[in-house]
Amino acid sequence: MKKYVLITGASSGIGYETAKAFAARGENVIITARRAANLERLKAEIYAAHPEVDVVIRVCDLSNTGETIALYDSLKAYDLKAVINNAGRGNKGGFIDDDLRRDIDMLHLNMDAVYILSSLYARDYKDVEGAQIVNVSSIGGYLVVPGSSLYCATKFFVSALTEAIDLEMRKGGHKLRAKVIAPTTTETEYEQTAHDSNEKFDYAARGGFYFTAKQMADMLLELYDSDATVGSIDFATRGLKLSEPKHPHL
Amino acid sequence: MKKYVLITGASSGIGYETAKAFAARGENVIITARRAANLERLKAEIYAAHPEVDVVIRVCDLSNTGETIALYDSLKAYDLKAVINNAGRGNKGGFIDDDLRRDIDMLHLNMDAVYILSSLYARDYKDVEGAQIVNVSSIGGYLVVPGSSLYCATKFFVSALTEAIDLEMRKGGHKLRAKVIAPTTTETEYEQTAHDSNEKFDYAARGGFYFTAKQMADMLLELYDSDATVGSIDFATRGLKLSEPKHPHL
Repeated sequence: MKKYVLITGASSGIGYETAKAFAARGENVIITARRAANLERLKAEIYAAHPEVDVVIRVCDLSNTGETIALYDSLKAYDLKAVINNAGRGNKGGFIDDDLRRDIDMLHLNMDAVYILSSLYARDYKDVEGAQIVNVSSIGGYLVVPGSSLYCATKFFVSALTEAIDLEMRKGGHKLRAKVIAPTTTETEYEQTAHDSNEKFDYAARGGFYFTAKQMADMLLELYDSDATVGSIDFATRGLKLSEPKHPHL
Repeated sequence: MKKYVLITGASSGIGYETAKAFAARGENVIITARRAANLERLKAEIYAAHPEVDVVIRVCDLSNTGETIALYDSLKAYDLKAVINNAGRGNKGGFIDDDLRRDIDMLHLNMDAVYILSSLYARDYKDVEGAQIVNVSSIGGYLVVPGSSLYCATKFFVSALTEAIDLEMRKGGHKLRAKVIAPTTTETEYEQTAHDSNEKFDYAARGGFYFTAKQMADMLLELYDSDATVGSIDFATRGLKLSEPKHPHL
């Protein structure tokens, strides 16, 4: 039976590049996001370079709990090699000034969807050799940044949850692994989405170092290939640092 | 104008005792929970001991976003001295075996409601002298416990969010303080609710040390009276340890 890697938030940024990187290895991919046109473009791009790879599109709004559960249910016929929970976004940041309803949607996208897909996948694949969850957190999932309070809190949820699942799976003798990658600034639609802007954000003009989405996707696959639980950025070398769980744990 | 302390999850446990402890100081309280009968009992108990204290009841299901926002809106005529976000619950614990729909409700109760009430209160009271948010997290908000993965992740959210708000308020020169208390085992309905049981859980029979809900409420008020951001338990002394934010932060 063919195997597939499910990648959420595949319409742009790290998700888009992660889908391409898995496809370049010959892996079949299921790509999901709200923007159908972007997924079609990605599918065409993958087919052009790797005609042997199967690409399945699922248009889905993961800030909606019902749609997230329905997405997973719609994939029951597929053999899922891995789930990459990449979908997520930021907000303007200030705790006082932000838009409450929009931020509640962010909570559901950044946390509920990650929990739902991780949980449903774990139930079905906990004892399958090679099964993996890779959740995309952030440096803000290990470091509280005043001015990005809510976004960081959602990412603390993701990193703590993922580390706990991995510890729990290993303790219980299950084969499933859960891993968390914690990117630093990456050139994606993050800033544009966070500020609800129509204009592309110029990462280079802001100064400071940042990664391209492709570089970060390559690091995600390096974590995927490794035996580590956490992939974070080493500021000294500007490279990936693979490690055991980083939060204090029992 | 009279001032009020809003306490969520006041139908039992730490919330119930916290309402009594504030009332014993002569503070007026607004108590909220789903179980009206328990709130009526608490109100009667407070009136019997402190007839001068005003007690306002709001029956509300904080796992419902709309109800949480409506609760806050219904309190616009009150002068809120503080908001104590105590409502929260656990689940059975195992990441694989739990009930998905019930756990999504837990996410909304433990996190969305805390965010919504903290955020709406911060908008209105950020520059009011003495204004405070006290959010009830857990030792599991600073320590990943395999077997309690989802509960811990929700509490990491609460502790990271609250620390970030406090840092942000101080940095911005605002008067509002946000504080987080991290209880260890406390004799409440926590275990009973987590396991959906009809029977009272016997904390003494399990062994190990635990606090009564009244002891924990007293510690919550000690944190409230202090200048600290975090109140956690010192295992050596079994007492409250007051500190600055504990998560790494910028």
